[in-house]
Amino acid sequence: MKDDVFYMKLAIANAKAMKGQTSPNPLVGAVVVKKGEIVGIGAHMKAGEPHAEIHALQMAGDKAKGAHMYVTLEPCSHHGKTGPCSEAIIKSGVKRVVIATGDPNPLVAGKGVTMLKQAGIEVEEGICKREADSLNLPFFHSIQSDLPYVILKTAISLDGKIATAHQESKWITGTEARNEVQQLRQEADAVITGVETIIQDDAGLIVKDSFVTQPIRVILDSTLRIPLHAKCLNDHMAETIICTSNKYDQKKYHQLVQKGHQVFVTSGENRTDLHAVLRMLKRRSVMSVLVEAGGSVSASFLEASLVNEVIIYMAPLLIGGKDAPTFFEGEGTKTLKEAIRPVDMDYSMVGKDLKMTMRL
Amino acid sequence: MKDDVFYMKLAIANAKAMKGQTSPNPLVGAVVVKKGEIVGIGAHMKAGEPHAEIHALQMAGDKAKGAHMYVTLEPCSHHGKTGPCSEAIIKSGVKRVVIATGDPNPLVAGKGVTMLKQAGIEVEEGICKREADSLNLPFFHSIQSDLPYVILKTAISLDGKIATAHQESKWITGTEARNEVQQLRQEADAVITGVETIIQDDAGLIVKDSFVTQPIRVILDSTLRIPLHAKCLNDHMAETIICTSNKYDQKKYHQLVQKGHQVFVTSGENRTDLHAVLRMLKRRSVMSVLVEAGGSVSASFLEASLVNEVIIYMAPLLIGGKDAPTFFEGEGTKTLKEAIRPVDMDYSMVGKDLKMTMRL
Repeated sequence: MKDDVFYMKLAIANAKAMKGQTSPNPLVGAVVVKKGEIVGIGAHMKAGEPHAEIHALQMAGDKAKGAHMYVTLEPCSHHGKTGPCSEAIIKSGVKRVVIATGDPNPLVAGKGVTMLKQAGIEVEEGICKREADSLNLPFFHSIQSDLPYVILKTAISLDGKIATAHQESKWITGTEARNEVQQLRQEADAVITGVETIIQDDAGLIVKDSFVTQPIRVILDSTLRIPLHAKCLNDHMAETIICTSNKYDQKKYHQLVQKGHQVFVTSGENRTDLHAVLRMLKRRSVMSVLVEAGGSVSASFLEASLVNEVIIYMAPLLIGGKDAPTFFEGEGTKTLKEAIRPVDMDYSMVGKDLKMTMRL
Repeated sequence: MKDDVFYMKLAIANAKAMKGQTSPNPLVGAVVVKKGEIVGIGAHMKAGEPHAEIHALQMAGDKAKGAHMYVTLEPCSHHGKTGPCSEAIIKSGVKRVVIATGDPNPLVAGKGVTMLKQAGIEVEEGICKREADSLNLPFFHSIQSDLPYVILKTAISLDGKIATAHQESKWITGTEARNEVQQLRQEADAVITGVETIIQDDAGLIVKDSFVTQPIRVILDSTLRIPLHAKCLNDHMAETIICTSNKYDQKKYHQLVQKGHQVFVTSGENRTDLHAVLRMLKRRSVMSVLVEAGGSVSASFLEASLVNEVIIYMAPLLIGGKDAPTFFEGEGTKTLKEAIRPVDMDYSMVGKDLKMTMRL
């Protein structure tokens, strides 16, 4: 039977399909239903373009009068680039609005709902809230923080290794998981890695799809060891920012700058200041970051509590070796009491690999 | 609807319930059905006692005449401690026998079925074969090998650590997983660990249930560093065998023997010879062994291809640390091509922990 949940799930599915193309705006979907028939669907597709509600109302046209509208996020009440959606909904003659989740911005939360109610529209909230919230974790985070949402991704064996003791790491996981990582990159506004990954693998860190907006490549390089011939400095596929500490190599700095590369110098002693890097990225409208790095860089992020989400792809094989690296090296926690415990865990299969997603 | 699969699953469930009490015999269950009604159920409960078929036929009594019998393993044809079951089935007047899986012993496989068929009984094989086979992996293995079936069990964090860098390991997993480990111990005929576990944790390695047969405790101790006051040498809860290499401490050896302890000296150079230990256990009718040890001992077993099954309990926490131990240390595999790939993987939740079971 087609009920509120059915229509809201359709709105969520349409919102989700826009992943990676709406930043810095959130993912939003809308559905208009008149007498049991869908008469309009919409989603927000790109910053500066119409909101989901506007698309759906336009599609519905006159049929919006007396209809029910399903929207994944509280309609806006402010005059932004596209005018307040609440006003457009009222004008359209919609008689009932079902909302999955509220506006995360505490300054405007509830205002859209109030406008609708004052216009005599019936409003219902909270249908499929959890799914709707999980659409926009990076966006919701960015409203309340001066840092982007950080996702740390890794690929491990059943015994927790990210490479053999001889540093072979290609490939631990199967093609399905590796394809998904391409998707994760596309959804991120920036990808962060350590210079070691560049030196060892000459990683390109790009999405293998020429039609998408490539994420900014951020290389953590405390002394500027990056080779001038590195792929990421020469392929012109995406913007690259080299981030360093106050112990950087002066000569290399000038070589890089002379060649037109961006070098961001943090005040970090010996190590690049990760907080500074993330704040800089946020100022550039980077809402979400994917960390794809070795065990030491990952440990730095985790130990500084800068990670919002960890995604582990675990392949069905045993690598072994006391010297084989794990994805979380560094000092580690001294006691089990201090261990990092995710607030949320999700397991699923991706090909033959197990995907574990956790929020910290 | 009650069909062949329904009755066979009941037979399997009854067989499974006897786990840990039938060794060195296999788990077997039987059900007798007359005109759509169950008239007898049975399972093999203890070596030396009646087989499953006998119990079920006795319960059925005269009703066995013309009935259908479901049995998880091919009925025996030889005169052992309890006489051939095939003969008893024929005498009972059963008209149809459904068998899940054949006798694993190649010397007698099919003989039971032949006897039944020659007596004019209808025989059907292969119903629920996979479930029935998995009941008796240790037993089936032991028929074809001079080594016991080896299960390696470990508990890890999401980042693959079995302890913090400061060696704290109690407890990584939750109570549900730890209770299951008690069950695994009970199902094993012997538990193997390294002397390091005895020195650090003074592990008792017993099943916390005074009514069960305790597995033999086997301590791998290449130089005989085991403390004389160790719990496992003094609690009289279960048999303990200390296994050593040819580099053992002579003085300690005499102290141990004088106190009445069993010391098994292998010809291993510096390291205890694991093959010799397993062969010795098999000679003592040990069909299945549980390895509960640290990363080095586990690596020795895995690298020597002595492990049949690995069970990993993965707890939802991140420990971190370059120096924190993983469950598979040693040299490890050099290349990913050489990595150990399980033939079979199974995932399930045990409380908040993920249980991964794999056959190698």
